[in-house]
This record gives sequence, C-alpha cells and structure tokens, in this order.
Amino acid sequence: MTHKTLFDLPTPSLVLDRAKLARNIRRMALACARNGVALRPHLKTAKSIDVARMVLDDQTPGIAVSTLCEAEYFAGEGLRDIQYAVCITPDKLERVAAIQTTGARLALITDNAEVARAIADAQDRIDTRFRVQIEIDCGENRTGVLPGSDQLIEIARILDAAPNIDFDGVMTHAGHSYGCRSLTEIETLAEAERLAAVTAAEAVRALGIDCNTVSLGSTPTALHARNLDGITEARAGVYMFGDMFQAQIGSCMVDDLAVSVLTEVSSHRTDLNHLTVDAGALAMSKDRSTEAVPNDVGFGLVRDARGRSIAPQMIVKRVYQEHGLVPMPEGQRLEDYPVGDRLRIFPNHVCMTAAMYDRYHVVDSASGNGTDIVAVWPRANGW
Amino acid sequence: MTHKTLFDLPTPSLVLDRAKLARNIRRMALACARNGVALRPHLKTAKSIDVARMVLDDQTPGIAVSTLCEAEYFAGEGLRDIQYAVCITPDKLERVAAIQTTGARLALITDNAEVARAIADAQDRIDTRFRVQIEIDCGENRTGVLPGSDQLIEIARILDAAPNIDFDGVMTHAGHSYGCRSLTEIETLAEAERLAAVTAAEAVRALGIDCNTVSLGSTPTALHARNLDGITEARAGVYMFGDMFQAQIGSCMVDDLAVSVLTEVSSHRTDLNHLTVDAGALAMSKDRSTEAVPNDVGFGLVRDARGRSIAPQMIVKRVYQEHGLVPMPEGQRLEDYPVGDRLRIFPNHVCMTAAMYDRYHVVDSASGNGTDIVAVWPRANGW
Repeated sequence: MTHKTLFDLPTPSLVLDRAKLARNIRRMALACARNGVALRPHLKTAKSIDVARMVLDDQTPGIAVSTLCEAEYFAGEGLRDIQYAVCITPDKLERVAAIQTTGARLALITDNAEVARAIADAQDRIDTRFRVQIEIDCGENRTGVLPGSDQLIEIARILDAAPNIDFDGVMTHAGHSYGCRSLTEIETLAEAERLAAVTAAEAVRALGIDCNTVSLGSTPTALHARNLDGITEARAGVYMFGDMFQAQIGSCMVDDLAVSVLTEVSSHRTDLNHLTVDAGALAMSKDRSTEAVPNDVGFGLVRDARGRSIAPQMIVKRVYQEHGLVPMPEGQRLEDYPVGDRLRIFPNHVCMTAAMYDRYHVVDSASGNGTDIVAVWPRANGW
Repeated sequence: MTHKTLFDLPTPSLVLDRAKLARNIRRMALACARNGVALRPHLKTAKSIDVARMVLDDQTPGIAVSTLCEAEYFAGEGLRDIQYAVCITPDKLERVAAIQTTGARLALITDNAEVARAIADAQDRIDTRFRVQIEIDCGENRTGVLPGSDQLIEIARILDAAPNIDFDGVMTHAGHSYGCRSLTEIETLAEAERLAAVTAAEAVRALGIDCNTVSLGSTPTALHARNLDGITEARAGVYMFGDMFQAQIGSCMVDDLAVSVLTEVSSHRTDLNHLTVDAGALAMSKDRSTEAVPNDVGFGLVRDARGRSIAPQMIVKRVYQEHGLVPMPEGQRLEDYPVGDRLRIFPNHVCMTAAMYDRYHVVDSASGNGTDIVAVWPRANGW
C-alpha cells in the first residue's frame, strides 16, 4: 500500500526529513574541508544506500560500517571502499572474502597480535588479500592499543610481513567525546585524538613501514576539531540525522534533527493529566542518554506532526513495550490532543531508535507543508 | 546457509533453549489451572508461531498480542482468537477488519468514550463486527478507566448499544507488579488486580449488560495469585522466556532463562583487565531494568557457550553500538577468553533484546550438549 502523507501512514513509523539531512551533510563536509581531511561517512546510523548516495561524492569516496551485514548490503549496492570499523575476529574472514568477490575492498581493523597472526595464517585457506588497519586508543578506554605501546609495533610488523595482507595504517575513535559538556572540552579532546593517531602513525613509519591511512573521528570531534594535521580522513555518522543528545552537546540544534518517530495519541487520563501514544519502548528504544545532559527529555521530545515545537517539556516521560506516556506540561491541555491525533517524537539517540525500523518514510520540510511522503528508503538492520 | 551448532553460527545471534521454554510453559499452565482460569498467552515477547504452538492447547485456545503486525502474522498462521491488548485508535479499524477476513476474530480494548463512539460510527464504512473490551486501571496509572468510574458506565453503554459491536467484557494489567520486591507484595497486588477487574465487571452487569470476559494478568501476578475468583482468563508473556529482571523479582531462576545472545570475544585490554564482545547496544538493547534490583548485571549476565555459569559478576558493564565491555571479575583471567571465544549473554529484559533479531536459533539443553541447532524460528517484529 502506498501512503501519501504522514496522516495516512500507520503508526509508529520512522520519518526522515530530506531537507534537514542535506543541510547536516553539507555542514560536516564543510568542517572536513576546512581541516583539509577527507570525510569517511559512517553508515552505522543510517544503514541506507539512499542516504549514502547523498553523502558520497568525488571528495568522499568511501564509507565506514559497523556490521558485516551493512558491508554486504553496501557492497551489493556497488560501493567499493568500505571500512569495517569494529575489531575483526578470525571466524569472520570467510565472510569478508565473500564480500570482496563483489569487487568491494574492505578495510579491517584489529588491536590484537593473535588476530593479526590468524589473518596472516588464513592465506592457506582463503584466497583474498586483506586490507588491515590497527586500532589505536586515544583515551576512550574501550578497544585499541596505546600509541606508544609495544603491541602497536608487534602488530604492525606481523601485518607488514604477511604476504596476504596490505597493511593500511592506523585509526582511532574519540567516542568519549560524548562525555564532553563544552566546546572547549571537545576541542581539547579532538586534539588528543589527532595526536594519538599521528603518534601511532609515526611510530609505525619509524619501523620503515608505510602508513597510508591515519583515520579518526566521532561526530563532535570531526565537527569541532581546529587542526587535523597529519590526518588523512575523519569518520562520523550520527551528524547526518542528529538527536536530542547531540543537540545538547553542541553537535546540532533541535531544529536540525532529521529523524523522528510518527505516533498517534492512543489514550487519555484526565485524572492523571497525561496521554499515551503508540510509540513505546520498542518504537523509541530504551536509550536514556539525555539523563546525563541538562535537558532530560525522557525517551524523546514530542513535537507536532509537522515537527514544530509544542513545549520544551512535552516529552515521553515513561515507556512500556508499546505505550509512551506523555504528561501534560504547564500550559498544555489534554483536550487539544484527542485520541488519534498525530505527533512526532525526536529521539535521544537516533542510532538506537532507527534500528527498530526497516525503512524510512521520507518527507521534505523545505517543500510544501513537509508532510507529503516523497520516498521510502530501506535500512540494512541486523548482523 | 545452514548452521549446525552454536560454534558455526554468526555472532551476535539469538538463541532459544526449547527445553527451558517447555518447562516455563508448564509452570504457568499449572499456576493457571490451580486458580481455575484459562491462560491467554501474550505473544508480544515471543512473536513466534512456533512458540505459540508450544503454548496453545484445548485449555488455552486464544492469544494476546501488542501490535497489529503480530495480529496479522498469527491470523495468517491460522490462529482465530486474538486479543489486541493495546488501546485501539479509530484509524486502525480498517486494518482490524482486514485481519478478520482471514477468519480470525480480534478482541479490541478501549478506555475512551470518544473511541467507543468512533467504533460504533464505523458501521457506515466498515463491514465487520468488532469485539470490544474495556480496559480497567488496577493501579498501574497508565491507561484504563477506574473500576468505579462514570467513564466505565458510559463506555459500556455505548459499546452495548452499537449494532456492529459485540461488547465482550473487561480487562486489566498489573504492570506495576514489576515494581514488587517480595512475594507478599506480588500477592497483595494480584488481589488488587483481581478486585479491580471483578468490581468493574459487576458494575457493568448491574446495568443489565453481559460481561463474558474478565481478564487480567502480568507474569508475576499470574504466577503468584492465590485466588482468581470471578476471573475468566489470565494473560502473561515474558514467563515463557524469563530474563535477569524476572529472575530477581521471583518469577523464575537464572537457570530457567530460555533466551540468550550468542556472542564472541572481539578484543582484549590487558592494561584495563577487560574484554569486549560483539554484542553491544543493538544486540542487547539499552534496557537497564536490573539497575533497580539487588544484583545489577549491567546489560546482561555472561555465561559460557553452553549457558553454564562462569561467575555472578561476569557481566556486560558498558555497551557501545556493536561492542559490549566485560570487566574481568575476581578469579577470572583474560587469557582464558581468547578473541573468538564464544559466550552467551542473558539479557535484563528479554522483550527488548529479542526484538533486535528476526529469528531464534533453537537449541535443546535437555538433549546432548545443548549446542546443536535443532530449528530456526522466525519472529514477527515491527508494527
């Protein structure tokens, strides 16, 4: 069935505003151009070839992904330069080789000498060349080796020596930038991220080993870095859509948010002065990241069906599997939101919310009233 | 591709233990039989016809669902008696009518007089009979009308008078039983749930209106209710699988948990004494319900690939989109979990975790070593 507007779409549904997406894409492209680095868009948030095609151009030839399912999907759509930006495990190598038979070339990452040896040893059973980068920890304390560590040297030597491996360089991720609460903090952390990557690259080059790629990135640091000398590419993903968390750590404004959940009012409690909507824990996710920032919006900010502000405290306060509970803030009256009324909820963390849906219903707020559905774009969920 | 055991399955994958599922199903059937009520299994957790077939029998002819997508799926599989246990909105009525053309009969619920009138008014445009129940609030403070309220009487009269509506009775849900921390609290709340439903049914009958169905339920109250006099059916869903939260509020034991996520070790940090697994926020969900119970297991309890206990504090402490971070507890050594090692993670809230997957890989812990995949069962996600 074809739906023409947000008013005849089943609820809950995922809505993507193409005009806001385009604006967000331009802003990051300008930030990377200012710093003289290529942008490698991370498609873990969008998981969509249609979004990828809006981002990619001559200056932006490759992408990053977070699952082999995404790699298979984008390779199947003809993309050729794909970084799988999660540490590879040896049993996933056959699947990598199968993807490369499409003509795509994957860049793998590792932080482990045993894994590097296992990739080298795979030459006996897997007929492909593996492109491999080393993951560096720039302070996130999750994965990666430290820039000055013996492990970095050991892994670089193993990868460089293996006849079936093209050692490609180093990469790092300042995921801890999400903990920053000021622009100054983000700038400081962006410089630490740069320094970790460049230091690691120089340590590898001192061994006489080429280090073509020096990659870093997170949406906050890629947007706000003041200097990316020595870096070849920046990765970022969530900037394309934005979310209530990013809006509060300085990555965007609430009016920039490109993705929301269309919902409708399903019940009223006049005695408790709240309504429920048909977007609950599965429609929004259980992400509570705005708990850590000044304006906690519960499980999402409620706006009208056109995406326009109602009240800053019109939020989904509680969720149940298929119910979202919205208390009426000061100045709002239940009777103005009858059962069946349509609303849009802007999520805390768009990577989590979008993953609950298999497609985007695309609207364009720069054209007409912004409620016509101009396209339906599929997503590549799962693993 | 067919996978034979948990050791050749891609990770992360959702694993369902058929032997534990069967045991959990028997336990709830016995609890309902003891109280002399029919069980209406809620399939919002399992979303699987294969699971439904294990639960349904002559004493258990009907199911409950939480989305119209589930209703369409189960009706398509031949099930006939389906309660859609979320307040209906008028624009969903066409979809309900379409489902009923398969021969299935849906029971709808409402707590709103305007909606009751809209269903009655639909007789001019929709050629079907709607079976409708009234939702009663037994103290959850979410949806529903109060048992002694004028709204209950008003809605019952509208539904009873409409020629296209079969008024079917009342239903309530003690979702707030998840807040109980002792068996005594659950028993008290189960009695309040019973009393709310029976009081509402009597108020309707006092009008001279039949009230065939008097339905209640939640996993804790359905299991532990001491008396369900006046009740015709109990609904419950999560009991089939269980989860770390339910295990801590007395609904089951950790060894009863039927669903887990198969993962593998993806990275080691010897300097930080933690490993990462390839099950992160998308593979586990962001549900943090065990934060509220004595033994907080982060984002899930880590056990071995056969589902056997390693250590009570072997947990996924932090999640990133595709990484789960597991600090080594006292007595555990990183070197015993090499990269590629397979583990199983038991989730906080199985309804949320299972929703991230499109299928179950079924094993049977009562047969052999419990790691052979004996079936693959699809799930009906989405809306």
